[in-house]
Amino acid sequence: MSIALICQQWDPAPWLEALLAADPELDIQVYPDIRAPENVEFALCWKHPAGSLAQFPNLKAVSSLGAGVDHLFNDPEFPVAMPVCRVVDPDLTQGMFEYVLTGVLYFQKHFQQFASQQQSRRWQRIISPYCRDYRVAVLGLGVLGGYCAQHLAGLGYGVSGWSQSQKELAGVECYAGVENLGAAVADADVVVCLLPLTEQTRGILATPLFAKMQPGACLINVARGQHLNEVDLLQALDSGQLGGALLDVFEIEPLPENHLFWHHPQITITPHCSSVTNPKSAAAQLVDNYRRLRSGRPLLNQVDWQRGY
Amino acid sequence: MSIALICQQWDPAPWLEALLAADPELDIQVYPDIRAPENVEFALCWKHPAGSLAQFPNLKAVSSLGAGVDHLFNDPEFPVAMPVCRVVDPDLTQGMFEYVLTGVLYFQKHFQQFASQQQSRRWQRIISPYCRDYRVAVLGLGVLGGYCAQHLAGLGYGVSGWSQSQKELAGVECYAGVENLGAAVADADVVVCLLPLTEQTRGILATPLFAKMQPGACLINVARGQHLNEVDLLQALDSGQLGGALLDVFEIEPLPENHLFWHHPQITITPHCSSVTNPKSAAAQLVDNYRRLRSGRPLLNQVDWQRGY
Repeated sequence: MSIALICQQWDPAPWLEALLAADPELDIQVYPDIRAPENVEFALCWKHPAGSLAQFPNLKAVSSLGAGVDHLFNDPEFPVAMPVCRVVDPDLTQGMFEYVLTGVLYFQKHFQQFASQQQSRRWQRIISPYCRDYRVAVLGLGVLGGYCAQHLAGLGYGVSGWSQSQKELAGVECYAGVENLGAAVADADVVVCLLPLTEQTRGILATPLFAKMQPGACLINVARGQHLNEVDLLQALDSGQLGGALLDVFEIEPLPENHLFWHHPQITITPHCSSVTNPKSAAAQLVDNYRRLRSGRPLLNQVDWQRGY
Repeated sequence: MSIALICQQWDPAPWLEALLAADPELDIQVYPDIRAPENVEFALCWKHPAGSLAQFPNLKAVSSLGAGVDHLFNDPEFPVAMPVCRVVDPDLTQGMFEYVLTGVLYFQKHFQQFASQQQSRRWQRIISPYCRDYRVAVLGLGVLGGYCAQHLAGLGYGVSGWSQSQKELAGVECYAGVENLGAAVADADVVVCLLPLTEQTRGILATPLFAKMQPGACLINVARGQHLNEVDLLQALDSGQLGGALLDVFEIEPLPENHLFWHHPQITITPHCSSVTNPKSAAAQLVDNYRRLRSGRPLLNQVDWQRGY
């Protein structure tokens, strides 16, 4: 019995090494070099080619190599009702919090404006608010969003959070449901998107939401490019409805060279690296799930097909 | 008896308002509109014109309106042996920590490099270290530096600190004396300067110090422009000895329009606003010191003439 590792956009070597370090007995076949497809019971995937799972007649479960699973469900030939897991990696979560904190401070301390001033050799002081006077709204209160919201609150920020179902998080004003989205973002100086990508959240970062934010508030998107309506963002920045945006994800990645975002003074771009799964810290739970699969025990971090996350 | 308020580079109104809110009975004369110089016993100064204190025959003490006092001692006509105080403002300290944290994260999460990449429409992922794997050296462990060092350690950073005299700070590897400066910065990814400006520290950020840092380490200067040898910095960046610099203070402020720093891709400039004294939170201690002066009790936050801080 064996595991298929399918991550052509990444170097598979660190994953192979980390998995074998967790269990040297594993038989791992790295796509596209599949020797014995009939032996594969468990597939570890990051953006697998559509249809590529059909070659495994005995596949019993699939795990995303990251926190997101939308790339799995994007495959129209994804096997229906196949158990799907994802990685819940404390390092991924911590790294995401550190990136979000960087972004919040970047706007709070006016680093985007100072960068513009530096471009034009302009010396103009701007007094910045303290953390205690700055408000952050976190959209999505799952593992990543919940951790970010609570840790920002721990640093003294005023934090509100929004999710599909009602959550309770210490120090966070929690809102739930589409009807309360406006209330969740109304007072925020920065809105952070950490939502899963589902049919309900696709395109949620658009004019109707921006209109509910304070004029001049900023946006951080670290979830998926498909959450954002790119045309609406440009309009909101140009009208002053939004003050700035920090984007780590885009509809098309890498961001095309002729995209308007590259040279917009109020858009700061990072190349989809807000936080990445650490193979070393993720391997143990992948191997654990493989053992659970083989012995018929319930899988960890399983995804709800219906909800899509 | 009255107080002189001398801060021509700032708007005096918020200071006047905050002082009178703390004690509505105060008689405050705002320079240069001095009605009765013989009544002035206490002068509150920020970059007063050299020699301007000579007009007060009954002056008994001077307070800086900020944490630094070098601007007082820059006046060659400053009255010898005059008691000098400074402001120790919890808001100034907190604001400085927030700025320093912004700067540390800015380098740690490669935001300076991503800004360069964005300029040239380049999409290149760079994986960032976690806070726990990132090391910060704080030069100066006074009120501001000590607070920053301890709070960075509290966020998980590896922190070393350096000061004139040996300090003990929880979670901080403390070094003291010129002979240990190299050891203090040897492992740092970022060196933060929060030293007082004295004859010993003037020009300390220069080639000999840079040579003791790891190649590619970054520098944050939030103390005084005179701590930095600007020519040495440019050489260190161009040779790769330093990876980047975030500067809030400069030899000449505002930074002259033709200065080489403005367009250097590895220098990020903020216009001397890392943290400012909040008149509201500083007024109480200024008024308290005035009362102490009038009743002959010891002044708070008094500066040591010999040390210069």
